Amino acid sequence: MMTSSSSSNSFRLGVDGGGTHTRAALTDAAADAQGNVLAEGHAEAANLVRVGLPAAINNIQRAVNEACDKLNINAERITSACFGLAGVGNAKHHAAMLAALQNVFPHVALRLETDARIALAGATDLQPGVVIIAGTGSISCGINRAGKFARAGGWGPVMGDEGSGSYIGRRALEAVVMAFDQRGAPTSMTAEVLRQFGVTAAPELPPVIYDASPEERQLIQQKISQLSRVAVQCAQAGDWVATQILQAASLELARAACAVITQLDLNHTRFPVAYVGGVFEAGELMIAPLRAEIQRVAPQAELGAPLYSPMVGAVKLAQQTL
Amino acid sequence: MMTSSSSSNSFRLGVDGGGTHTRAALTDAAADAQGNVLAEGHAEAANLVRVGLPAAINNIQRAVNEACDKLNINAERITSACFGLAGVGNAKHHAAMLAALQNVFPHVALRLETDARIALAGATDLQPGVVIIAGTGSISCGINRAGKFARAGGWGPVMGDEGSGSYIGRRALEAVVMAFDQRGAPTSMTAEVLRQFGVTAAPELPPVIYDASPEERQLIQQKISQLSRVAVQCAQAGDWVATQILQAASLELARAACAVITQLDLNHTRFPVAYVGGVFEAGELMIAPLRAEIQRVAPQAELGAPLYSPMVGAVKLAQQTL
Repeated sequence: MMTSSSSSNSFRLGVDGGGTHTRAALTDAAADAQGNVLAEGHAEAANLVRVGLPAAINNIQRAVNEACDKLNINAERITSACFGLAGVGNAKHHAAMLAALQNVFPHVALRLETDARIALAGATDLQPGVVIIAGTGSISCGINRAGKFARAGGWGPVMGDEGSGSYIGRRALEAVVMAFDQRGAPTSMTAEVLRQFGVTAAPELPPVIYDASPEERQLIQQKISQLSRVAVQCAQAGDWVATQILQAASLELARAACAVITQLDLNHTRFPVAYVGGVFEAGELMIAPLRAEIQRVAPQAELGAPLYSPMVGAVKLAQQTL
Repeated sequence: MMTSSSSSNSFRLGVDGGGTHTRAALTDAAADAQGNVLAEGHAEAANLVRVGLPAAINNIQRAVNEACDKLNINAERITSACFGLAGVGNAKHHAAMLAALQNVFPHVALRLETDARIALAGATDLQPGVVIIAGTGSISCGINRAGKFARAGGWGPVMGDEGSGSYIGRRALEAVVMAFDQRGAPTSMTAEVLRQFGVTAAPELPPVIYDASPEERQLIQQKISQLSRVAVQCAQAGDWVATQILQAASLELARAACAVITQLDLNHTRFPVAYVGGVFEAGELMIAPLRAEIQRVAPQAELGAPLYSPMVGAVKLAQQTL
């Protein structure tokens, strides 16, 4: 007979599922708001648009099972859960994912949110405020004292994601070919961008980028997104073109955050604006223009790091469910 | 026995092969520079990057055969040819296409150029000058009195094509979601853009755009490119957001043209700059900012319509070959 390593009878689950990773956290269902995470589990992507619904559900189950295994409990002892998943921002995807989750976790009071919503919950610890998320994609969202939620951005790489890693990487690539054409200023990004694509001159880039098979296309997109690191390194070393790209990205993120602030009528109040995501590893290069622009429309806004992770945000929202 | 309907012994061939259409023209090989086109043939795309090399070659053969059939001649009576094809801008694709064409037309003195190069040849009637091409993609190129050739742009939708139909269409789509988010000003483009994608509100756009199968993806790209017409119509009706998009596109095209002008050291000479492609159907909305910007760096540049079509440009280049 199995004996549980936990003395608790029931558990609360928070899941953060993005385009590359899924994280699951379990807390004691009886714990207060500061309840510690008892166990975590990890798996690959849970974005149904990217990997398809079956793979997304499979990865979610794997992350949850790993967390349960660590506590030596059965998943049936989870009583409430919040799933914060990329790709469920529209009604059709939300409905499909919710039905699939209910099927897999039939005994759980469950709540399905976007990955942005749980990042907000974690970043502000459920208090009114705004979050700016800039990883591969970008989005800003917030909530005010009246509980009104608003968002801007997050429309994906074709029509949105301004200021994100893929936006910065694409701009870096454009800057390299513009410099080659003498349409734009020379940039120190050239050598590293060419190296990343395994070519020695700009005219060799088009076959690498456009002849990719459907399977390779995802990899090419990732490579372009990762060029954002090249832009950051070159900007930090003083490259003017790279600095301009990061400044433009920063202003696009500010534009989204300001739209959220104005939609929520927060302009004349004091509230936190948290920044989340790999793009902010650039530090003040990204953050300084963002802060200046946000404080122009909301002078009492306080830009800072998030209080808790999106995964903990999900646990906190799961608690709100009951 | 077949008898030829033409009294000429030999013929000259010009082919203009793009991403959607291929056009072939035959002239008398003994004709002078103004030699009239005796017959034309048409077929679908000849861009090997888009449709693959076998399909591109097949469409080129179909267009040439149609022109030959109209004159009731055998293709072996073609002595010189110039093929101006999209997608052969880099060495690897050029070599593959040239080998394939030599295999299909073994008796012909043939020359393979990009579609931009033949457009230039036609636009300026082989004289020094610059051409700006803005259809689905965009590129500028030119040639100076010393025979030096230069180009800018034409790097494809991922890293170039600024100012093209796909650039304008994408900007229109972005403007619609920005207006929805209150990140950007409202725009009259919204209703028509939503209608084109068969949805009633912006949040329904992501599944239509991102859930497309690999086969549908090309169609989605075409639809986005065609939104440039919506931008033009709305700008003509006075929409501010649409007008800004066309102005930005126009300045990007000017940027490419100015890079070519400077590379060719044409800034202080009198020369023609011809505009070619669907984007210019917008008229002065696109052309006026372009003219102003070009004349800022080259005051004697004369912006105007092309003298001859790219297809005739190809015939003229075929003549240069011998």
